[in-house]
Amino acid sequence: MLNFRTDLATERRDLYQKANNIENQIDGLESQKEVDENIKIERVKITNENGEKAIGKPMGNYITIDIKKLKIAQDEELKKASETLANELRKIIDEHIDKKGEILVVGLGNIYVTPDALGPKVINNIEVTRHIINYLPQYVKEGTRMVSAISPGVLGTTGIETLEILKGIVDNINPKLVIVIDALASRSIERISSTIQISDTGIVPGAGVGNTRAELSIKTLGIPVIAIGIPTVVETAVLVNDSLDLFITKLQEEAKSNDYLNQLKAEDNYEEIREALDPNDYNLIVTPKEIDELIENMATVVSGGINNAV
Amino acid sequence: MLNFRTDLATERRDLYQKANNIENQIDGLESQKEVDENIKIERVKITNENGEKAIGKPMGNYITIDIKKLKIAQDEELKKASETLANELRKIIDEHIDKKGEILVVGLGNIYVTPDALGPKVINNIEVTRHIINYLPQYVKEGTRMVSAISPGVLGTTGIETLEILKGIVDNINPKLVIVIDALASRSIERISSTIQISDTGIVPGAGVGNTRAELSIKTLGIPVIAIGIPTVVETAVLVNDSLDLFITKLQEEAKSNDYLNQLKAEDNYEEIREALDPNDYNLIVTPKEIDELIENMATVVSGGINNAV
Amino acid sequence: MLNFRTDLATERRDLYQKANNIENQIDGLESQKEVDENIKIERVKITNENGEKAIGKPMGNYITIDIKKLKIAQDEELKKASETLANELRKIIDEHIDKKGEILVVGLGNIYVTPDALGPKVINNIEVTRHIINYLPQYVKEGTRMVSAISPGVLGTTGIETLEILKGIVDNINPKLVIVIDALASRSIERISSTIQISDTGIVPGAGVGNTRAELSIKTLGIPVIAIGIPTVVETAVLVNDSLDLFITKLQEEAKSNDYLNQLKAEDNYEEIREALDPNDYNLIVTPKEIDELIENMATVVSGGINNAV
Amino acid sequence: MLNFRTDLATERRDLYQKANNIENQIDGLESQKEVDENIKIERVKITNENGEKAIGKPMGNYITIDIKKLKIAQDEELKKASETLANELRKIIDEHIDKKGEILVVGLGNIYVTPDALGPKVINNIEVTRHIINYLPQYVKEGTRMVSAISPGVLGTTGIETLEILKGIVDNINPKLVIVIDALASRSIERISSTIQISDTGIVPGAGVGNTRAELSIKTLGIPVIAIGIPTVVETAVLVNDSLDLFITKLQEEAKSNDYLNQLKAEDNYEEIREALDPNDYNLIVTPKEIDELIENMATVVSGGINNAV
Repeated sequence: MLNFRTDLATERRDLYQKANNIENQIDGLESQKEVDENIKIERVKITNENGEKAIGKPMGNYITIDIKKLKIAQDEELKKASETLANELRKIIDEHIDKKGEILVVGLGNIYVTPDALGPKVINNIEVTRHIINYLPQYVKEGTRMVSAISPGVLGTTGIETLEILKGIVDNINPKLVIVIDALASRSIERISSTIQISDTGIVPGAGVGNTRAELSIKTLGIPVIAIGIPTVVETAVLVNDSLDLFITKLQEEAKSNDYLNQLKAEDNYEEIREALDPNDYNLIVTPKEIDELIENMATVVSGGINNAV
Repeated sequence: MLNFRTDLATERRDLYQKANNIENQIDGLESQKEVDENIKIERVKITNENGEKAIGKPMGNYITIDIKKLKIAQDEELKKASETLANELRKIIDEHIDKKGEILVVGLGNIYVTPDALGPKVINNIEVTRHIINYLPQYVKEGTRMVSAISPGVLGTTGIETLEILKGIVDNINPKLVIVIDALASRSIERISSTIQISDTGIVPGAGVGNTRAELSIKTLGIPVIAIGIPTVVETAVLVNDSLDLFITKLQEEAKSNDYLNQLKAEDNYEEIREALDPNDYNLIVTPKEIDELIENMATVVSGGINNAV
Repeated sequence: MLNFRTDLATERRDLYQKANNIENQIDGLESQKEVDENIKIERVKITNENGEKAIGKPMGNYITIDIKKLKIAQDEELKKASETLANELRKIIDEHIDKKGEILVVGLGNIYVTPDALGPKVINNIEVTRHIINYLPQYVKEGTRMVSAISPGVLGTTGIETLEILKGIVDNINPKLVIVIDALASRSIERISSTIQISDTGIVPGAGVGNTRAELSIKTLGIPVIAIGIPTVVETAVLVNDSLDLFITKLQEEAKSNDYLNQLKAEDNYEEIREALDPNDYNLIVTPKEIDELIENMATVVSGGINNAV
Repeated sequence: MLNFRTDLATERRDLYQKANNIENQIDGLESQKEVDENIKIERVKITNENGEKAIGKPMGNYITIDIKKLKIAQDEELKKASETLANELRKIIDEHIDKKGEILVVGLGNIYVTPDALGPKVINNIEVTRHIINYLPQYVKEGTRMVSAISPGVLGTTGIETLEILKGIVDNINPKLVIVIDALASRSIERISSTIQISDTGIVPGAGVGNTRAELSIKTLGIPVIAIGIPTVVETAVLVNDSLDLFITKLQEEAKSNDYLNQLKAEDNYEEIREALDPNDYNLIVTPKEIDELIENMATVVSGGINNAV
């Protein structure tokens, strides 16, 4: 399998197609695009084992929503992005549980580390109903879905695996479905805080930053896990690898390139670059300067989307 | 039983003695004082059912540490307060588990509400070791105690009772003892963020603000629960009741008082005052203007104290 | 003059009327009320020296906007409050400068002290145009007013009087009018973060909390100063004084009162209460427990109101 | 002149030497190194016009302090770094004013943008004395230096040039020297929040990120300006340019390189890379993922250093 270094199924599909010179649809993968002015939706479905092997993800749905210029987005655009997310989320939830099935929303990450604070910030804005239905049922409409929310913290602060915390809570309060929000590593700085991936196959926290934790999925928690992932950081080696392509393209345009450079561009040089940067302490994980605002905007979009969908 | 409106055992003992005109020790209660320059320690032990009834708390240890002028405390004084807390905490932990017994530290409260943010802030500074002992045992000294920490959020934000969250986690990771940090309501504005109560009989979150939640104790969690409570808010009616005493004292000194006022002072007028204020939306829960700094200082004292003790 | 202990002209007028048993309009004071569902507007105008003496404020306009239940206000209500503020503000600005006159918005207070953070938070949301008009005039509509904004900090952090900082800036950039936002002390806990006072006679920062700083007004800055003041804290003695009235009223209703108590109620006991509390370190300045959320909501209302008005 | 894209005089000197194949000292430049375990000090002095031209900085002192592993630094190491800064700062201040000369400390930047929040955070911890000396001289020792501090905000939020704000304040309160703290762009991600440059020739805010503002210096403010600059961000093109060198070095070691690559490495490809990345919106300004903690640690070091030095 390729070392994809991305959690986004669409990026993996593109990389797989490039690596194998495939132009048509891959067997076991269905995909569909929808493009609006500032919002692009792409739905990838892995339908069989061949698709699983090709892009190294389990069978299920993977939806990518791209929002252009989130950094300078106005209230109206944030609202529209929120509605798009709500629509996709609603469909995917309905595939797994009925309208009254209880949902637990989980915000992974660390509130004190800006690019990792998305999950906890979303949780703070989720409209929870579980306690009202339990203690003050007269204040909610008949048929309201039970929603609860938790931000369990990170292993470095708690000393406890997120799975251990969630397993205990899920066993105790018995929701029918879990929605997990997590900050991802991206293969591309463009996607940072402007792409949302929804999938119904769970999540491996920290996978994108080489700090893999125990999987959160139906296998480990016993109920379906919908993951909402948003790239917020990128590894320097990834950044350099992609920039190198752009740089060589420019040299080619200027007829300054040569066979060796052309070959460099045709290949994926990530591993070599990483090996060059690592010993020099150069391969940091970075985030855009404007990450505070991007996280605020994204938290508004995601919490709004979840509140509407559930 | 009196309506004590305080979680501090020492305040309850004083109120009980006043209400019953008792000057000597109460049967079933042992107490002991230690006074240093800026720090006062008082240890109350409830030894039998009579003591339990008198002050409405279960048998066990209740230690109160008062720190004068915490608001303007310098690093040195905060350090000393931390050490005092560590000493008391160490003794009380040793009464329940051995030196290697695993401890889970729980910070109750809401990080987004300043006077309620103490618990989550303390958790952020606890030196957790559980994950290191599990994954990188070579990096810790032989015999290091396993410590983990969690900040479970509040019912209004999560929709889940704190007990439900903790029960799940405790059953899953099996610590031997829980330390819970909670912000309390005080009977006196002087004590706000300058008093620490340690007890080994558990805690009823929210009890002080009339928003009682399920008890966290050996009865509900199955393991001993040491509670560290710090007053951070006070009800207006409590404030007025105490101020009324001071006001009447002043009138008495000026020979302006009369029998009725003297009688008012001898009684506890809290209920009457509360009934006068409530319908006017006047009985708010308040906190000092400087609460941000008080909470920071107190979080430093408590996290330092716990880290030293465990 | 009475010791009013309030910066609100309407409260001073009421106190003056009570103290002097005046039921009709006071000479030199005009006032007018407008009541909507959740919003109450009261406009007081001091028209001559007699009015000035009566309530101890200079001639000019004093408008009080009361917003009920700001703490639980939804977006819609916040928007409406914002529009009310914008309307009043627009009228009062138009009395002093023309549509193109440059405005400097000043947010007093300390971002690190929650009840004092309103000014800096408002500044962060002001839509400034001065630099765009100066450097990128093509991006703004012809006729756009120049707006700039500053949050100068507090004396305890800067070591510099706010007047010294503002005098320097005003002399250098030459605006035509200053709008100052300040957190006030209130005479009543009900008004905390639910009342806005607009006046066009300037401000004495810190006056409400007995920490008077140099006046910001046309006298000291040379240009008109519109002050937007919002009560965010209250002194304990004030709280007790008002509560005492409610308590005695209740005793009277229960026929438990007596001549002396009735007389106590007729009088203003603030000074006596303050003298009783001060030596006991009991006369703290307090704020409601929910101050974080109140400040957020109020900052939304005030910044929205200013942006609309200018 | 070279396009140095760095504000650090030591980096410029190295780049100049490389570009001109100079191995010895440059005429007009004196430099001196001091290396301790974790702290490296380098002092560069530009002594004549030749030196000025060579590295494009005015005559004066430029001191660079490098702190290794600031991210994981413990209290002890932070304290030591603080003392090193204090020593260097004390010497450079003494060259310009006497022991009693009043100092204004200015923290540039935006408190709401993490990598730009260093200045405001430092200001919050400066021990100001000016107001105490003015109002309560009995509380300070005879001979205490007047210190004041301000965080003026950024052009995008205030609409006012920093120079305009400071000019007004300096003219009004008449300090003898200004210390300005600013976040810089670095030529190298290693230096982010681990290098401090002290210079006595003023500062051009925003110069490192292509957003040049009016110079703050003795020329514009009329008094000496000591600048404390700390790199907190880096441009992607800079990052790629440096990484490319490391990558080609690795290819050379593996004998995979060729003449063209060797030549690429010998040259500075920043301009070409920037031109390749810019049209693809790829040339973002980035910061390490751990920037929150780096800024906290650096604010502790800088405020401690200034407090000790003044």
